[in-house]
Amino acid sequence: MTPEEGGALTFIEGVLREAGFEVHRLVFTAPGTPDVENLYARYGSGEPYLLFAGHTDVVPPGDATRWRHDPFSGVIDGEELHGRGAVDMKGGIACMMAAALEFIRETSDFKGSIGFLITGDEEGPAINGTVKLLEWAKARGERFNHCILGEPTNPNRLGDMIKIGRRGSLTGRIVVEGKQGHVAYPHLADNPVPGMIRLVDGLLREPLDQGTDHFDASNLEVTTIDVGNPASNVIPAEARATFNIRFNDLWTPQSLEEEVERRLREAAGNTVRYRLAMDPTNAVAFLTPPNTFVGFIADAIEAETGRRPKLSTTGGTSDARFIVKDCPVVEFGLVGQTMHQVDERVAVADLDRLSTIYRKVLDAYFAASADALQA
Amino acid sequence: MTPEEGGALTFIEGVLREAGFEVHRLVFTAPGTPDVENLYARYGSGEPYLLFAGHTDVVPPGDATRWRHDPFSGVIDGEELHGRGAVDMKGGIACMMAAALEFIRETSDFKGSIGFLITGDEEGPAINGTVKLLEWAKARGERFNHCILGEPTNPNRLGDMIKIGRRGSLTGRIVVEGKQGHVAYPHLADNPVPGMIRLVDGLLREPLDQGTDHFDASNLEVTTIDVGNPASNVIPAEARATFNIRFNDLWTPQSLEEEVERRLREAAGNTVRYRLAMDPTNAVAFLTPPNTFVGFIADAIEAETGRRPKLSTTGGTSDARFIVKDCPVVEFGLVGQTMHQVDERVAVADLDRLSTIYRKVLDAYFAASADALQA
Repeated sequence: MTPEEGGALTFIEGVLREAGFEVHRLVFTAPGTPDVENLYARYGSGEPYLLFAGHTDVVPPGDATRWRHDPFSGVIDGEELHGRGAVDMKGGIACMMAAALEFIRETSDFKGSIGFLITGDEEGPAINGTVKLLEWAKARGERFNHCILGEPTNPNRLGDMIKIGRRGSLTGRIVVEGKQGHVAYPHLADNPVPGMIRLVDGLLREPLDQGTDHFDASNLEVTTIDVGNPASNVIPAEARATFNIRFNDLWTPQSLEEEVERRLREAAGNTVRYRLAMDPTNAVAFLTPPNTFVGFIADAIEAETGRRPKLSTTGGTSDARFIVKDCPVVEFGLVGQTMHQVDERVAVADLDRLSTIYRKVLDAYFAASADALQA
Repeated sequence: MTPEEGGALTFIEGVLREAGFEVHRLVFTAPGTPDVENLYARYGSGEPYLLFAGHTDVVPPGDATRWRHDPFSGVIDGEELHGRGAVDMKGGIACMMAAALEFIRETSDFKGSIGFLITGDEEGPAINGTVKLLEWAKARGERFNHCILGEPTNPNRLGDMIKIGRRGSLTGRIVVEGKQGHVAYPHLADNPVPGMIRLVDGLLREPLDQGTDHFDASNLEVTTIDVGNPASNVIPAEARATFNIRFNDLWTPQSLEEEVERRLREAAGNTVRYRLAMDPTNAVAFLTPPNTFVGFIADAIEAETGRRPKLSTTGGTSDARFIVKDCPVVEFGLVGQTMHQVDERVAVADLDRLSTIYRKVLDAYFAASADALQA
């Protein structure tokens, strides 16, 4: 579990070193957060450079007695491998490694580099993980051309879905200030509730947009409103609300904050006194346009599964939002159905097929011309 | 302090008995509430029957070290009597008793009855107090013609204000039901916040009325809205709100509940799933129209203070709401400025003047014809 290494990175290090990778183990620290172990590995020195990214840390198993098998046993029961991380995403990392090692073994004369960027801080605060790994790599002069992140992306069956982008996330908090008093003397008080109703109504009234070619419409949810006044004969002094926006590539956090400010200002008029504070965010919206690289992955999936994957930008955020600053990134991994749940498990056949898909991507990628990879 | 008798009723009993009153001490009990002592006294047996009502219990003194004098000392410091209850309302009871005893002494041939209905449960749950005293009296065949309740009614100076009625109070609670989910997957969830916004907006949009001859407009305050969701990436399952209405004599709790139901139904349309529950209430709106009886009190106040009191129906609820079911009731007492505060105190001169006012009311009341008292 985050932030424990649990032997996973040591195992990966051993396998990759034996295959000829240069491996770096990196511990990052920050005040107030646990130290976290990470791993960076590279095979080859030329371009193009294809990076596999992922995480070995996992969410807690919850009540282990509710699991059919010890959540950390990795038992194969019938046709399924059981254990926390089976799909999210030690399973995905195993497939990447199997594909890379096989490709290197069978294609010794390929030109380019294959890398692994593995963090132990994806499910935790995400401070001592991918962001610092990328900074460290950049400082060393490492330069990636493309990245595959192996998060579980398929809702139901392997091959359902590639993620070619993610929406951004922005959280804001509103406080409406009133004046406390007795309900029998409303002229001596100032109830903040009607003002909050107006502000929230102003935020929700108009859709933010209608969506774009590859993104759903941006969406604002008011996640809580709280006054916390237990006395029904008292007019409260203050009302608070929090909202979260999942936004598409029409917006930046800055332009969205300006839009929120505009809506609140308009709803407040001269009558509602309020404060707005936005939480800091690094979750910008991004898109890897469906180019040659995305095509290689979709083709490999179709060849192996018979299904043409949906090119999606739905769902929550992922570490892809950090990597995209350095190179185009596409997410494809196992079937997510059991992730974060009791009895997380994966079909052994899916592990084989995902390895084959990654292998086919490597074949196509390193056979392509530099021009093709830019298209 | 409620519910302790503290010797007050025993003192009153002694004084009234000596003056010829028939005195009853009554302890009322109810499961889950403290036993409370009360007192009922009557002088005479005929009509008209003028009842003085009040309470000897007081609210807690808070931090006694912040008081200039021991809150239960009753010290006279300069021109003021200090102590918890000085104005709310042991002081008022003392004035009533002084007036009644003087009147009886000086008007031995008067025809009619003077009574005292004194509870020890006005500042508490109000369960073992006035309501049960009235029930007990009714069961005995006691029948009152008019009542003066001695609560502090004057905002600034003695003679400012008589209360000839009170607004009613009705509290309702709304729950909007949604479905919890992740903000990144809003189509799988159902946020209850927008529905709650619509319902509250529907409640607040139109004024309930424009007020009446003797009452302000009825007023609805939403006293709290609570979702209690700490996670800004989670769509909550439920939103709750409480509202309180202070209503005038255009409404009964029943007609008001119907109006609330109508507004919510209209605002909800077919899209908002909600539940409404009204708290039980015995706080109906009532008015003692400005008749001869009210005139006696206003005249007595003007004769003593030079001020014609305002006939008001403002403020919170009082025990008058229970008494009005049996006879017309008017509230007049001391100056309320320091009530429920540190250093509660009353001008000694006000105690003398309030006694004189009550005495003048007794003179006019028992000199009036039965017909005049009905007008």
